[in-house]
Amino acid sequence: MERQKVISKLTHLGGEITNEIMLHGSPKIRIPQRSIGNIHFNEKENLLELGDKMSTRSFLNVAHSRKFMQTILIASKCKEFVSRNKTASIRELYYQLKHTIPGTRENTFDDQSESDPLIVDLEIALGVLREELHLKADDKGTLIGRITIEDSGDFIDCSKLGRSGLSIPSIVEHYRFHDVEADYVLVIETGAMFDRLVEEKYHLKNNCIMVSTKGQAARGCRRLVHRLNHELKLPVIAFTDGDPWGYYIYSVMKAGSMALAHESKRLGTPKMKLVGMTMTDIDTYGMEKVTEKLKDVDKRRINELLQYPWFQRKEWKEELNLMSKKGVRIEQQALASKSLEFVAEEYLPEKIAKKQMLP
Amino acid sequence: MERQKVISKLTHLGGEITNEIMLHGSPKIRIPQRSIGNIHFNEKENLLELGDKMSTRSFLNVAHSRKFMQTILIASKCKEFVSRNKTASIRELYYQLKHTIPGTRENTFDDQSESDPLIVDLEIALGVLREELHLKADDKGTLIGRITIEDSGDFIDCSKLGRSGLSIPSIVEHYRFHDVEADYVLVIETGAMFDRLVEEKYHLKNNCIMVSTKGQAARGCRRLVHRLNHELKLPVIAFTDGDPWGYYIYSVMKAGSMALAHESKRLGTPKMKLVGMTMTDIDTYGMEKVTEKLKDVDKRRINELLQYPWFQRKEWKEELNLMSKKGVRIEQQALASKSLEFVAEEYLPEKIAKKQMLP
Repeated sequence: MERQKVISKLTHLGGEITNEIMLHGSPKIRIPQRSIGNIHFNEKENLLELGDKMSTRSFLNVAHSRKFMQTILIASKCKEFVSRNKTASIRELYYQLKHTIPGTRENTFDDQSESDPLIVDLEIALGVLREELHLKADDKGTLIGRITIEDSGDFIDCSKLGRSGLSIPSIVEHYRFHDVEADYVLVIETGAMFDRLVEEKYHLKNNCIMVSTKGQAARGCRRLVHRLNHELKLPVIAFTDGDPWGYYIYSVMKAGSMALAHESKRLGTPKMKLVGMTMTDIDTYGMEKVTEKLKDVDKRRINELLQYPWFQRKEWKEELNLMSKKGVRIEQQALASKSLEFVAEEYLPEKIAKKQMLP
Repeated sequence: MERQKVISKLTHLGGEITNEIMLHGSPKIRIPQRSIGNIHFNEKENLLELGDKMSTRSFLNVAHSRKFMQTILIASKCKEFVSRNKTASIRELYYQLKHTIPGTRENTFDDQSESDPLIVDLEIALGVLREELHLKADDKGTLIGRITIEDSGDFIDCSKLGRSGLSIPSIVEHYRFHDVEADYVLVIETGAMFDRLVEEKYHLKNNCIMVSTKGQAARGCRRLVHRLNHELKLPVIAFTDGDPWGYYIYSVMKAGSMALAHESKRLGTPKMKLVGMTMTDIDTYGMEKVTEKLKDVDKRRINELLQYPWFQRKEWKEELNLMSKKGVRIEQQALASKSLEFVAEEYLPEKIAKKQMLP
């Protein structure tokens, strides 16, 4: 979204509130509800979505007025950030706004836990991402492969970054893509497996872009994968540990999360597939010896996943039930028990060629 | 250290053990003790060091024989890695070595917690870093600035990486440095502050290399900072939160840690200084309103730091005692309460120019 459009949305919000004040009414903001009752899984799109239920926050309602004031302060500060073309972390936003209201002993904010949820409210109310409000989350993740990324005037050939790779920032809206020679994107859960594949030159031999999420993917990483898929039409393949935690990381990148259901459309990659690790891999490749017993917390998590609407596909129910039945999990790095090169020379190329992937 | 030298150290270890077997003796390995009684703070070098106390691990001692076998397995696998010029994560090493000993029900390793400490033993016994044994820890951290890094045949101009920066890998032994135009290295604790300084083009305007540790610095990051200091003679300045956790992160990068005292010489940067945040900053810049009250856990940590020999400098005792007295901590990002640009345009340049730094 253009900066100018974000500014006009913020200006429009301010204008409405000013109007209501001029008319001696109670200024209010209408915000879609984000409680669980208003979150739906859209099966056709394969995405979590917010429904139509709305809340209203009124200045003249004593229960709302502090939050109302805070929401307006945030909106105003974001308008300043976008207008000045500055970005800020959500913590910097908090520090910028924290002050004692003149003539009172009241602080605008006492804690960042007050400002964070209001940022989400503002995103939903305006239909913009926080990145478009120039707010940053933490960054995490690395990219390497045959693509040139234009970032702030620099052209970065991501196939010429040795074994290091590009650090994925928290905001990737400004990235422009050039010279894309890759056939697909491989998203890898652990940094150690990413390193293994870089060492084996997997991205060069198999002509792909590799992204390491280093655990749960940060927003910048999710948005980048979304853009590589939607703008460049590159298929995206995920490669996680074979356990409920790895599968959940996959599902968040694919379909979104309950907490940020309003952003699934901009952050999610519904066509993503998962190449492994799967429970059938254990038998196929004879890896019983290098599995790990499920702990109680793993078992509980499997049962939770089985309840989620986005894990109701036949293949996923089978996979999760097989995991419960076997009582084990398997890590990406367990493939090293075959040989260090096995994952890069046999496991991934064969499974991807045969399209042995979970939906 | 040259690969060939590491291989000959491993070969020598194997040769000694074979000799003892041939002579019908009990093969043994001598390893410097790493218990607290054998760790000293070298005040002259400003580094934590291991003392001279040794332990002996004998194959024919029932209490030692499992560990002895495991140590030799690790040494043998590392020799293979180095000879083949392959690296592996410590988890991959574990999976590569885990198997059932033929004719028994005994596993070589039951858990990675068995192999990890033996890696440290081997490092100490041979006087090599685990990176030189081609073993990797997790990677974390980002670098940006006026330096060209040669990595596996690629020349990476780190001033041409937009706002993204280079992802610092777990092993940086193979890095070669070229075209260094920077005057110093600024090491930054939080990713968000690194982003702020990148956005303000601090590294270009102030001609420095910036490194983000993202919390406690990973080994690759510590080693890289060490090399930038020792090989290029670049001064290193740390910029952390003003709390016992930030100061501890600084002290580990500077002087090493108890757990890895044997590696301080290769990972530490004893001449490093700390520019902030300090307790006097709070008064100097009028930031009382954006401090955070110390929690009990913070207070306990301050008292622990006051016991460490490497925090006995007058300046540090004053700083830590002042923190206790004020009862507050202050974050890097609290500087945003002045203005987003304040840290880059006033705080850092002024303090660094005036050499207002802690030792």
